[in-house]
Amino acid sequence: MMSKVHTDELEKAMLQKLAKRGVCIRDIGKVVYETQAPYNPGLSLLKCEESVSAVLKKREIQHAVLVGIELDELAEKRLLSEPLQKLVETDDPLFGCDETLALGAAMGYGSVSVTTFGFLDKHKIGIIKELDTNSEGRVHTFLDDLVASIASAAAGRIAHLMRDEEQEFGDMPTIAKEKIG
Amino acid sequence: MMSKVHTDELEKAMLQKLAKRGVCIRDIGKVVYETQAPYNPGLSLLKCEESVSAVLKKREIQHAVLVGIELDELAEKRLLSEPLQKLVETDDPLFGCDETLALGAAMGYGSVSVTTFGFLDKHKIGIIKELDTNSEGRVHTFLDDLVASIASAAAGRIAHLMRDEEQEFGDMPTIAKEKIG
Amino acid sequence: MMSKVHTDELEKAMLQKLAKRGVCIRDIGKVVYETQAPYNPGLSLLKCEESVSAVLKKREIQHAVLVGIELDELAEKRLLSEPLQKLVETDDPLFGCDETLALGAAMGYGSVSVTTFGFLDKHKIGIIKELDTNSEGRVHTFLDDLVASIASAAAGRIAHLMRDEEQEFGDMPTIAKEKIG
Amino acid sequence: MMSKVHTDELEKAMLQKLAKRGVCIRDIGKVVYETQAPYNPGLSLLKCEESVSAVLKKREIQHAVLVGIELDELAEKRLLSEPLQKLVETDDPLFGCDETLALGAAMGYGSVSVTTFGFLDKHKIGIIKELDTNSEGRVHTFLDDLVASIASAAAGRIAHLMRDEEQEFGDMPTIAKEKIG
Repeated sequence: MMSKVHTDELEKAMLQKLAKRGVCIRDIGKVVYETQAPYNPGLSLLKCEESVSAVLKKREIQHAVLVGIELDELAEKRLLSEPLQKLVETDDPLFGCDETLALGAAMGYGSVSVTTFGFLDKHKIGIIKELDTNSEGRVHTFLDDLVASIASAAAGRIAHLMRDEEQEFGDMPTIAKEKIG
Repeated sequence: MMSKVHTDELEKAMLQKLAKRGVCIRDIGKVVYETQAPYNPGLSLLKCEESVSAVLKKREIQHAVLVGIELDELAEKRLLSEPLQKLVETDDPLFGCDETLALGAAMGYGSVSVTTFGFLDKHKIGIIKELDTNSEGRVHTFLDDLVASIASAAAGRIAHLMRDEEQEFGDMPTIAKEKIG
Repeated sequence: MMSKVHTDELEKAMLQKLAKRGVCIRDIGKVVYETQAPYNPGLSLLKCEESVSAVLKKREIQHAVLVGIELDELAEKRLLSEPLQKLVETDDPLFGCDETLALGAAMGYGSVSVTTFGFLDKHKIGIIKELDTNSEGRVHTFLDDLVASIASAAAGRIAHLMRDEEQEFGDMPTIAKEKIG
Repeated sequence: MMSKVHTDELEKAMLQKLAKRGVCIRDIGKVVYETQAPYNPGLSLLKCEESVSAVLKKREIQHAVLVGIELDELAEKRLLSEPLQKLVETDDPLFGCDETLALGAAMGYGSVSVTTFGFLDKHKIGIIKELDTNSEGRVHTFLDDLVASIASAAAGRIAHLMRDEEQEFGDMPTIAKEKIG
């Protein structure tokens, strides 16, 4: 029986692919920071990067990144068969497999992730904008959505963690207090 | 055996509920127009309203609207049990059932719908903004997402129809033509 | 400013509601066991119950359970407005808000969850079957899907954990070993 | 400006790819028939095939089929980079991109589609079983899910159409009649 792919190998391969395509954890962390800072005054870039790292440990995300970058690279080398080659190469606005794949991977972090993803798809910021613009011979049809998806998942994760902390440290009147009060 | 609910009854009930809550087809049409006009120079408000009407014929949408408005109205009358009453009444940012219900209903119109939904969730415009603001004793926790969902579905529908028309009327060089040329 | 709902309160309310409606963690654990045991020889019922408990800590699940049971209870008391009352009361086969709400909450646990959910929707087993059958005056339109959703999420969670353990304890030849071998 | 891919070209390419991989409309129609016949006594195989054809006109489905078959074919030729090659080739049970892509394309047909998809994923029947079994050197990791997705979408479409017909031809007492009665 054939052996299975070990998670460590998966994660390493994904991080290498991302780096090779010009995306590092800090870049994604910055996108997270920009979308979440307005809601969380105490948020630091470091916390955002940690959240991105945590999200990148998920197999669903790792698999999606590997599939998406593979398709981008094959399209760059013009190795996809037609008409798929043209759909990916031109990032046809009605071609939705990139969003489907990316969104599916981010679904795990609740509705904050889903709406942040939709927002980032329209308002490309930071590294997502760079990927979308810097296109001399480059194909980033899947990668820009994947980065948006990772950032959205990390943003959703932070929204939940911040609430947990509020509760823990009493920045917020709890139900119990209110009732006593 | 108990009879089933007829589609005509469903649609009528939904339109009445929407009207009672201050939302008409034209309001939603305007949101669609605002999101799609930048991509479609020839788009008219009438076409947007027609697309909204078409979307409102879908059972999935009709069901979601009836459920969502019911929950809003029950919350207004303070008839939900705690802690659900508080979650809906305050539109808790981590409460995602409104987005889940709304998004599930719009899924039928492709990735354009999903990203438009996420965008409208962050950038509330037109009637969605009114619902979100005009909140003196009013609860629109579900309704604003439902309207965003209907608008997104109608927007996705238009994006596909416009492409069909381009192809039909030759505004765009078709593959065949290009190859001949 | 109104206080937010504390997670502890949410979880407690959800567990009480589930108990009141006749569903305990062990019941759901049994469903998980039945779906996952064929794939995991070493699986115990205890592990399944632990996984259910972990899933029930998620806000998305807690919210969905509160919404769904509320609608079931309102339908039982005939307090929903028509035609929603009839749709929920008769569990109309085309009414999909129950599945949408339930599935949205389980999405966080990958594709194993999604397909397990679809399977449980057709092959009702254990407590899901009881909820579906024992219907004298009872409405469980939302609850049976919610239980299927919790079980599916717990099943997906186990599938991932089992792989992690395999890797940890070497029950499985890793890529590295294979290459050395 | 580069021309866009015409829908006719898309559909033709998809049908050719499906045929080349051993799947014809009739095969998928049979799966639909098997899942829906129990609920619809008057259902014919012809109607199921028509529903499959209608579903195959959707761009979202066409795109997903082209992407999925491309990945299967590349894996067969061992042209994917590692570790993706191994994940696809062995259809790793935790690899969910195939389900994500397939399910995303079927979402348009309501909750009946989603649960039918989950069911077919566990109970492989007809052509889906053949694809899963006949694997000498063949990779059908994406294709079997895509076929399940097309069949599920067609099944969901039929469930809605049958209800429309019931209403039209009075096989079912309508609300109005009941109230008069």
